[in-house]
Amino acid sequence: MTLVKTAWNRKVNEKGHQMQIAMINDRMMRVEEVGPEYLDRGTFFGDGVYEVLRSYNGTIFAFEEHLERLANSLAAIEITGIDINKIRSRVLRAFEQARIANAKIYFHITRGSGLRDHVADENMRPNFFLTVMELKEDPRLKDKGIAVSTYPDIRWKRCDIKSLNLLANVLARNNAAKKGCDEAIFVDDEGFITEGAGSAFFGIVNGKPAKRTAGKLRTAPLSAKILPSVTRKYVIKAANNIGLEVVEESLKKEEAAKAEELFTAVTTKDIMPVVKFDGQVISDGRPGEWTKQLIEEFKKFIC
Amino acid sequence: MTLVKTAWNRKVNEKGHQMQIAMINDRMMRVEEVGPEYLDRGTFFGDGVYEVLRSYNGTIFAFEEHLERLANSLAAIEITGIDINKIRSRVLRAFEQARIANAKIYFHITRGSGLRDHVADENMRPNFFLTVMELKEDPRLKDKGIAVSTYPDIRWKRCDIKSLNLLANVLARNNAAKKGCDEAIFVDDEGFITEGAGSAFFGIVNGKPAKRTAGKLRTAPLSAKILPSVTRKYVIKAANNIGLEVVEESLKKEEAAKAEELFTAVTTKDIMPVVKFDGQVISDGRPGEWTKQLIEEFKKFIC
Repeated sequence: MTLVKTAWNRKVNEKGHQMQIAMINDRMMRVEEVGPEYLDRGTFFGDGVYEVLRSYNGTIFAFEEHLERLANSLAAIEITGIDINKIRSRVLRAFEQARIANAKIYFHITRGSGLRDHVADENMRPNFFLTVMELKEDPRLKDKGIAVSTYPDIRWKRCDIKSLNLLANVLARNNAAKKGCDEAIFVDDEGFITEGAGSAFFGIVNGKPAKRTAGKLRTAPLSAKILPSVTRKYVIKAANNIGLEVVEESLKKEEAAKAEELFTAVTTKDIMPVVKFDGQVISDGRPGEWTKQLIEEFKKFIC
Repeated sequence: MTLVKTAWNRKVNEKGHQMQIAMINDRMMRVEEVGPEYLDRGTFFGDGVYEVLRSYNGTIFAFEEHLERLANSLAAIEITGIDINKIRSRVLRAFEQARIANAKIYFHITRGSGLRDHVADENMRPNFFLTVMELKEDPRLKDKGIAVSTYPDIRWKRCDIKSLNLLANVLARNNAAKKGCDEAIFVDDEGFITEGAGSAFFGIVNGKPAKRTAGKLRTAPLSAKILPSVTRKYVIKAANNIGLEVVEESLKKEEAAKAEELFTAVTTKDIMPVVKFDGQVISDGRPGEWTKQLIEEFKKFIC
């Protein structure tokens, strides 16, 4: 039986008694009493975008590139009227206040708060939320390398937008964590690796540093399937600097498993060697020579 | 130049002075002062699920089916420890308090609140949010029918989960609204209609009620591409009752444009005739005969 009768069934239509009600956990209130923090379109729809920045010894890395990407994400989902200069100064204000040398700065902008309706009120004012936290780094991790596991890329078709729709990423990462892995690597329906749940993904195939001619750095090309990662850009620059050929072509899952070296790249960790892929040990199970050279070369970007 | 120098660059590493900072709009505070409402995984990741119920004259329609779907959505994203009986009684408590005869009840459950991390703390307590609002219905709309426009189905690959990752739906609906349309209809890469941004989609092809033998009701089959809509189930039941053959096969966009009748189905509007599809007038531009019969038949489910 699909119908539930309530005590006041016979008393309905006494319009004078009706009241729009909200409940937050067990607490009941009038809808009018609900604060905007509970009516954020970020929560209802994931209707917002975000950025993650980091500082090295008191200096934010690639700040302008991140702000540029933010502007692109905002434009893609048509959140208008954001003054990027204002965002920049808010970030700086919080960063200066925090006085954390190696900080992780997260912030998101949502379309605004209001009663739930897919179609947004054009006069809505966007919400801004930011944290500056200490970046906890374990230097041994870079020496040891991490284990990753694959997960089907079930995300939406606009992964180039850094949006708050991250449930697939959460599911992938939780799945990886259960397997004792530090990152999940998305594989699309055709078997190609797109990127990590929270990082860009790279493989070095056909060559060792000893024979400099053969080594090739492979990574997925920029498209709507991956985020235009800022760190990816710097990794490519570092590869060019050390004479490592870069091929922007997605790796097949099987190619990755047989690669000589693998690594991920993300703002908060820059280059992170991958030594295990779906349980399979990569090369000799230690960070590869090219990867180590890239890590050193990357450091030069950090003044 | 990608580096930004701050005033305190030379003063870093004075660990004693550092402070984890948060900013909400223009307001700065210590991270410890941020309330859980701002740290909801619903906002950070869309890490939650929702349901929309409606009541007809004081009775919630298909309440148990919605709770069943909720349980499935929760299980699919591995939010555990939710007592569905508790959810049922919360909904009823708010509904009874509101005394709204024709109410729209929205609620969501998120994995919980905490500092942002893809991997969820297992001890996190889920958040519950609900509103009971008056359902504003314009009875003329059903007589007139609505206009819809298509939008590429860029959603993720688990549309069977009623999750808070709804940015594609928002983009589609805003796009439709700009074209003066009431609903957006998703079309996948192969040209097949999956469903509406907020409704199931149906077409009647090859037959008019006058020649009862030929009419066929077409709708997408249940799969990960569409939501297992409760209203869809009742529409199919209604079709069976009136002798209208149901074929669970997706309509091509071109087929829909040439269909004899089209309609959407959703909890808050039940069956809604569609009279314009991407600017093209359907049949004579008025709700079709089968659709009207289905609307009448549907009413029988509402006691």
